[in-house]
Amino acid sequence: MRKAIYPGSFDPVTYGHIDIIERARRTFDHLIVSVAVNPHKTPLFTLAERMEMLQEVCCGMDNVTVDSFTGLLVRYAEQKDAQVIIRGLRAVSDFEYEFQMALMNRTIDPAIETVFMMTNSDYSFLSSSIVQEVARLGGPIQGLVTPTIERRLREKLNQ
Amino acid sequence: MRKAIYPGSFDPVTYGHIDIIERARRTFDHLIVSVAVNPHKTPLFTLAERMEMLQEVCCGMDNVTVDSFTGLLVRYAEQKDAQVIIRGLRAVSDFEYEFQMALMNRTIDPAIETVFMMTNSDYSFLSSSIVQEVARLGGPIQGLVTPTIERRLREKLNQ
Amino acid sequence: MRKAIYPGSFDPVTYGHIDIIERARRTFDHLIVSVAVNPHKTPLFTLAERMEMLQEVCCGMDNVTVDSFTGLLVRYAEQKDAQVIIRGLRAVSDFEYEFQMALMNRTIDPAIETVFMMTNSDYSFLSSSIVQEVARLGGPIQGLVTPTIERRLREKLNQ
Amino acid sequence: MRKAIYPGSFDPVTYGHIDIIERARRTFDHLIVSVAVNPHKTPLFTLAERMEMLQEVCCGMDNVTVDSFTGLLVRYAEQKDAQVIIRGLRAVSDFEYEFQMALMNRTIDPAIETVFMMTNSDYSFLSSSIVQEVARLGGPIQGLVTPTIERRLREKLNQ
Amino acid sequence: MRKAIYPGSFDPVTYGHIDIIERARRTFDHLIVSVAVNPHKTPLFTLAERMEMLQEVCCGMDNVTVDSFTGLLVRYAEQKDAQVIIRGLRAVSDFEYEFQMALMNRTIDPAIETVFMMTNSDYSFLSSSIVQEVARLGGPIQGLVTPTIERRLREKLNQ
Amino acid sequence: MRKAIYPGSFDPVTYGHIDIIERARRTFDHLIVSVAVNPHKTPLFTLAERMEMLQEVCCGMDNVTVDSFTGLLVRYAEQKDAQVIIRGLRAVSDFEYEFQMALMNRTIDPAIETVFMMTNSDYSFLSSSIVQEVARLGGPIQGLVTPTIERRLREKLNQ
Repeated sequence: MRKAIYPGSFDPVTYGHIDIIERARRTFDHLIVSVAVNPHKTPLFTLAERMEMLQEVCCGMDNVTVDSFTGLLVRYAEQKDAQVIIRGLRAVSDFEYEFQMALMNRTIDPAIETVFMMTNSDYSFLSSSIVQEVARLGGPIQGLVTPTIERRLREKLNQ
Repeated sequence: MRKAIYPGSFDPVTYGHIDIIERARRTFDHLIVSVAVNPHKTPLFTLAERMEMLQEVCCGMDNVTVDSFTGLLVRYAEQKDAQVIIRGLRAVSDFEYEFQMALMNRTIDPAIETVFMMTNSDYSFLSSSIVQEVARLGGPIQGLVTPTIERRLREKLNQ
Repeated sequence: MRKAIYPGSFDPVTYGHIDIIERARRTFDHLIVSVAVNPHKTPLFTLAERMEMLQEVCCGMDNVTVDSFTGLLVRYAEQKDAQVIIRGLRAVSDFEYEFQMALMNRTIDPAIETVFMMTNSDYSFLSSSIVQEVARLGGPIQGLVTPTIERRLREKLNQ
Repeated sequence: MRKAIYPGSFDPVTYGHIDIIERARRTFDHLIVSVAVNPHKTPLFTLAERMEMLQEVCCGMDNVTVDSFTGLLVRYAEQKDAQVIIRGLRAVSDFEYEFQMALMNRTIDPAIETVFMMTNSDYSFLSSSIVQEVARLGGPIQGLVTPTIERRLREKLNQ
Repeated sequence: MRKAIYPGSFDPVTYGHIDIIERARRTFDHLIVSVAVNPHKTPLFTLAERMEMLQEVCCGMDNVTVDSFTGLLVRYAEQKDAQVIIRGLRAVSDFEYEFQMALMNRTIDPAIETVFMMTNSDYSFLSSSIVQEVARLGGPIQGLVTPTIERRLREKLNQ
Repeated sequence: MRKAIYPGSFDPVTYGHIDIIERARRTFDHLIVSVAVNPHKTPLFTLAERMEMLQEVCCGMDNVTVDSFTGLLVRYAEQKDAQVIIRGLRAVSDFEYEFQMALMNRTIDPAIETVFMMTNSDYSFLSSSIVQEVARLGGPIQGLVTPTIERRLREKLNQ
């Protein structure tokens, strides 16, 4: 069985992430969408909230599990018996950083393969931080995140 | 009448910005050079100072107005009846970020067009933050900003 | 009056080109879409055919003229009293070549400004040569060119 | 069963290709390494020779098949019931072209996913045409291709 | 005599840095490896520690001196009678920033030449901050830094 | 003695090349500017003409020799006892190809170091082929090549 991990901050999950989740779960037997906990960053949403939003979004996708991890991604992949790490590439994106991480991860465990998939070009500009920024400035985000996440984001920013 | 907006932090305005202002005001009927107020960043110069410096620099350019805005750039463009957003591209510059913002702005209002103009290659390395850094370290900045702005920058850093 | 030139091979014109034509004619008062005649290349369609296809596509766009030119683009712009050259940028595209040409053109006549506009991200992969290649291999091209041009392309390749 | 296609010219197959073949066959259940026949190009080796060399190289890899195709890659993938196209990315490589092809292929059949895998950084400079060029100039190629292919290449160039 | 400066944060020095030091000292008569003191950043290791680690690493390299500097790099090069600044380029790296700094430095003193050398592709992913991050997460770093520096890094992070 | 080779087609030599020659001869003790003879390309100028033009341009530069070579650049460098290969980088240029060649050359002889120097940003758009193209179309090339070479180019194109 081919098991893959799609790691990220998902703060919050966007249609760009959902697009990659759909592609990855069609390409591999099982997909773990996993929230990376980074003690050095202050996310907008708590870990619990981010996992809840992912669970809503992945609801009904039978070969997808939502999880979280701390520490080294590669060690986490080993524990989960996953052979593959999924990264989304946008035509407009940070290849250099992605490549640097993929090569670093390969030195830690050569058996874990990083695989890049291309986001739908409609979402080539989309990132969680752009969604946060537009929402903060009162702009429209309905084409960027699901209605539920839009509502949650508005509530969060009104606190 | 073709009205364009050239947004930026202008902290402070450099010869690279002035080059784009000259090009844009020749290309469009009216140009609004507008200081973006970002509540999450701490600029070196206050908003009032940055607008004052721009006004000095644009003094005598009859089709140029200096202004400032908060919130979404696209909403601001709509209010000003501007059809065009100007962005300067340096041969050495951050395309990815520029493209991401342009595509995001297009989803908010498809009627507002982002147009890229190339900076003179003499200024292809120039940015406000590099000017600040060189000035802080006591380096020469006379070819990078106007004499008035050089004086202001020295005063500001001596405070 | 702001007059702009959109030069290209248009061999054949694609939806990506049409997208830029629409954007440019909204941004400037008059637009000349002009077929560049390159004696060193052998196009698939003749000059007359390429101009005819552009005329069909631009039919009803009152501020657009279709033309052709040989020789230096900048000299042609001067003759036409155009101040602006339009180039389409795709998120996936050849910046380096575009920048090289724009800088070269600037040294020939600094009064002619090159302005870059972003293609709709749906067409970020699209080029005339990719359309030709897919058509040659019998692939579907209905989302890439207009129905009339699709028919012409099929006829041309069957000759 | 997850079936993937790794298309290419393989003129000749290099250690960089072999690296991707190894990674892809670990990541998917079945891998078809398929020589793309391009009637517009004149390869150094014939189709038969290129397939023979691939067969030697893939000998003993039980989940790998060597094949060839003409026409549209996506149509070929459909015929082979493959869901995935593999492309190797080198840190030093042509992303733009790769992305353009991947997006084009997606418009032809959205069910076929293109997946990018990173070549070992030891081979980040390696391509068949560089191998041909070095061999032609009498340079050492033992770290670039297998001994058998090195011998074949020398023979071919001496003809 | 050709004297070159290789500036950096070296927080800590990695095998990637050592690779460039070896290349640069073979290419120029004398090499000064110099720790840049940046009052706006908080390094993991103190200046004294970073110089000590460099001295260990460069021990026995007769044409290499370890030093540190504050202020403008170009002014420092002038004081040291160095004609050349060395920068390492990784296939995976930030060209834009490197180019911007090189062009800026050239405007300050055109007599000081910036020269780029390529890191061994084995280290194309390597940076001090990635080493810090992996060490913090308890990952293996033995192929990334020397055993002594590995020990120092573990001690530092356990404090 | 530090000896460097600056290889190229020089068809014809431009101010961009001259800029790199000046930088390289200041940085190394001896510089060999060497015309690469490529049997697969048809240059505009003959080898003799290209060497003659280089000799005119380098006349009076006491530490510069003009030469030519066929075959592997690295083998040629070994024969000439040169430790360094110089490549010019333009902010607008083909890094990928340059890196690929540099890495390939390193595998052939690790003792030969490729060193990159930045062209003056005034020439960041300049290449021999652009000069040829502009001259062919009757455009101005006086800022791109020396007056002698301009005359030779006009003569050559009138033949």
